[in-house]
Amino acid sequence: MQVVEAKIRVRYEETDRMGAAYYANYLVWFEVGRTELLRAIGLPYREMEEKHKCVLPVVEAFCKYRRSVGYDEEITIKTAIKEAKRRGITFEYNLYRDEELVAQGYTKHVVIDPQGKVRSFPEEIYKTLARIADGGNKT
Amino acid sequence: MQVVEAKIRVRYEETDRMGAAYYANYLVWFEVGRTELLRAIGLPYREMEEKHKCVLPVVEAFCKYRRSVGYDEEITIKTAIKEAKRRGITFEYNLYRDEELVAQGYTKHVVIDPQGKVRSFPEEIYKTLARIADGGNKT
Amino acid sequence: MQVVEAKIRVRYEETDRMGAAYYANYLVWFEVGRTELLRAIGLPYREMEEKHKCVLPVVEAFCKYRRSVGYDEEITIKTAIKEAKRRGITFEYNLYRDEELVAQGYTKHVVIDPQGKVRSFPEEIYKTLARIADGGNKT
Amino acid sequence: MQVVEAKIRVRYEETDRMGAAYYANYLVWFEVGRTELLRAIGLPYREMEEKHKCVLPVVEAFCKYRRSVGYDEEITIKTAIKEAKRRGITFEYNLYRDEELVAQGYTKHVVIDPQGKVRSFPEEIYKTLARIADGGNKT
Repeated sequence: MQVVEAKIRVRYEETDRMGAAYYANYLVWFEVGRTELLRAIGLPYREMEEKHKCVLPVVEAFCKYRRSVGYDEEITIKTAIKEAKRRGITFEYNLYRDEELVAQGYTKHVVIDPQGKVRSFPEEIYKTLARIADGGNKT
Repeated sequence: MQVVEAKIRVRYEETDRMGAAYYANYLVWFEVGRTELLRAIGLPYREMEEKHKCVLPVVEAFCKYRRSVGYDEEITIKTAIKEAKRRGITFEYNLYRDEELVAQGYTKHVVIDPQGKVRSFPEEIYKTLARIADGGNKT
Repeated sequence: MQVVEAKIRVRYEETDRMGAAYYANYLVWFEVGRTELLRAIGLPYREMEEKHKCVLPVVEAFCKYRRSVGYDEEITIKTAIKEAKRRGITFEYNLYRDEELVAQGYTKHVVIDPQGKVRSFPEEIYKTLARIADGGNKT
Repeated sequence: MQVVEAKIRVRYEETDRMGAAYYANYLVWFEVGRTELLRAIGLPYREMEEKHKCVLPVVEAFCKYRRSVGYDEEITIKTAIKEAKRRGITFEYNLYRDEELVAQGYTKHVVIDPQGKVRSFPEEIYKTLARIADGGNKT
């Protein structure tokens, strides 16, 4: 499985009165993670939507919170494709503060066209995603 | 000037580690205010966009913060149309916690069509908005 | 199981360029749901934190998205306590647009004190939560 | 006036159904801008709060939106200190997409201690901020 790293710094806006980052923001950071993974493998999500007409709404999201993270801390999001199917994709995320695992999760997506109709990935894109899911080391 | 009231309750998500609501959220509450004003005068913003093809991006926003507001507090947003023009509209907002004024501001909008081209309000809509700006008591 | 209803209206801010509500907002709505459940059973979350010194960080969150929801739509959040333990609580959520189930999920929380130390619920509170989890109809 | 640059990339979460970034997010980006300015001049905001006991709530915010910005676009936030006073500070922001000015604004802050009482900046900090406001080139 090929893993792509992205970094975010916790914004003041993302904290809550408990003093740490509010839990819904982790799903936003997951978005940053999969955006950078797709860019890294040559399939920027904006092109996915605009050029390839593949929109990827989330149908399932899960997050396990292990450590709270605070304002201005730098978090590394390690994203991988857990499963690529012709009509959907699952990303998995591991969030680290330095070497410490702070959260883990996944998001499951289906493929629709811009009009909202279920569709399949174009074959070339599917193959790329499947290869990355398998580690990115096949030809 | 006709004033329309809307209420919101401060969400935990909207607080920050200072313990009070984060400042950008006031602009979201302004949105709630103008949404309810437009609904109250028979011009729901969704119809404004979808039926009348008038999209109202913000070109200027201002907020003066007088008191911090905390989690779970109920805020009343009093919204009025400060100025209605054929090609734009300015809303003003006064936010209260009970009788206490906690914030004031305005947003200035232009009118564009869904493709992003500058346009004017349809005459009937312009008249309605102008009447409300003047107090809603003209015929 | 006792179910408490809360309503939210999708804010423009909560939509994304796909045209529907962004997926992380559902977790914010879950927060609205559990806030109103706790208020309804006489244990407002603000008092839980400030008076009873019980802070409830989320340790696990899950959401299944069944239908996309759009700007200005009214969503009913039906919240219940799935499980109450001495040192934690799990809420479950069902989101409806009229009669249509649009999303389902849960959040699992532990109890800590304001300094961040793991603790148990005070016995009276635990009993109330456990009774609600069982349907609220025991004495 | 000394100007510090920070970069953000527009998140999908930050867009709305108009297809561009929602207006309240600019105030979050302003926060990123002033955070990086303070870090660059050796006064990280987290230390400002935790070590120097200076909390800087916003009392006034203004933004002029010149161009809409879209998903995944990179925005450069150029931040400067417009005015430094013993009991407050005003930051100003210019947001660029490449060479194009897309938004401008300012935020005005007062200084309070963590308990919420109005206070002055410690003299050394005040001098640093005033020097940066004047261009950072005095001794």
